[in-house]
Amino acid sequence: MSLNNPTAGEQWLSKTALPESPFVSFAKSVYPISAEAQAYANEKCFSHRLRKNEMLMVAGTICSHIFLVRKGILRGYAKDGVKEITTWITCERELVSSITSFDLQIPATENIQAIEDCELTGLHYNDLQYMYEHFPEINIVGRKILEKYYRDAEERAYIARLTEATSKYKHFIVTKSHLLNRVPLKYIASYLGMTLETLSRIRSKLSQNKQ
Amino acid sequence: MSLNNPTAGEQWLSKTALPESPFVSFAKSVYPISAEAQAYANEKCFSHRLRKNEMLMVAGTICSHIFLVRKGILRGYAKDGVKEITTWITCERELVSSITSFDLQIPATENIQAIEDCELTGLHYNDLQYMYEHFPEINIVGRKILEKYYRDAEERAYIARLTEATSKYKHFIVTKSHLLNRVPLKYIASYLGMTLETLSRIRSKLSQNKQ
Repeated sequence: MSLNNPTAGEQWLSKTALPESPFVSFAKSVYPISAEAQAYANEKCFSHRLRKNEMLMVAGTICSHIFLVRKGILRGYAKDGVKEITTWITCERELVSSITSFDLQIPATENIQAIEDCELTGLHYNDLQYMYEHFPEINIVGRKILEKYYRDAEERAYIARLTEATSKYKHFIVTKSHLLNRVPLKYIASYLGMTLETLSRIRSKLSQNKQ
Repeated sequence: MSLNNPTAGEQWLSKTALPESPFVSFAKSVYPISAEAQAYANEKCFSHRLRKNEMLMVAGTICSHIFLVRKGILRGYAKDGVKEITTWITCERELVSSITSFDLQIPATENIQAIEDCELTGLHYNDLQYMYEHFPEINIVGRKILEKYYRDAEERAYIARLTEATSKYKHFIVTKSHLLNRVPLKYIASYLGMTLETLSRIRSKLSQNKQ
């Protein structure tokens, strides 16, 4: 292709110069992916915004997309009777989806809510399956990402079983310090499986010990 | 190669007629894998037996193998002070490993113990990495297995957060009924995050309601 030929140059631009999707940058940070896979993802990924408190996903519906968080924080929660149980809290550079619903394309048991204004990049389930089938390296990316998320889920299951409320909160401070000043305490308390009163008591005790 | 030449025939047998490893059958039930990948796994997988109560893995050591359970039950547990917290219970046709230690090749924080006599098939970390690098379809197998295990870990994290002990036990009966008569109650109680006394009380109440 000669860049001296403006028509050819424009055609080339329109075919390949789609801006790189944040999803592609994210995948490339895990494992190198082919130009074809990048072009496909750049074409299929889309931007999605949510206002604070808006729902990304409601229990009972099928989760048809996976999202990368570019900006903001979201939480996953399930109902236990009338009570809400926050099961995860996620911020920038993390993936968000209702995993069982997305993988199996069945109705979700959990809800996903923005707890700050959010900017997300989305990819449809069918487009991800297409990529798994046509670009072998996407399976390496998927496998590596799942290894990390599986380790995190195991960690969450372990922390939830700790009986000592102070141990749970200390663990949260160490591993999620970046969320401490951004997430309302009621969600942190629910995530840690304790009442807001217990969490406030622990925080005040720890802060006294520091002084 | 002519089968009329007995030497060539024997050589062929010794190279390819290794019995199919249970690991290979397991992988094939997830996604088709090449003859080369099968031959490699058949050569590298090995059998391992454990007596009831014997340890497969001790916290502080690096988990160098992943195992498929052919027979028996194992549990993963971590220490919370002097208390043992059972984080998972696994039986036949499931994989066993200390996932964070295995993935990152760092010392484990959990222990793995046989709670029945066990027969396992093992594969070394290096051999699995070799397969990921040389047989692209193994990444599809790995990705699909991880999707399932990630869903299960999310489920465990959710169950551990349920506040109602009876709900937790009812959920266990529905999802793990095959373990009910094989696993000592003290481990089920620990897995469900309740005391043995609470579990016994719930069981006796549910059994009275049935009559």
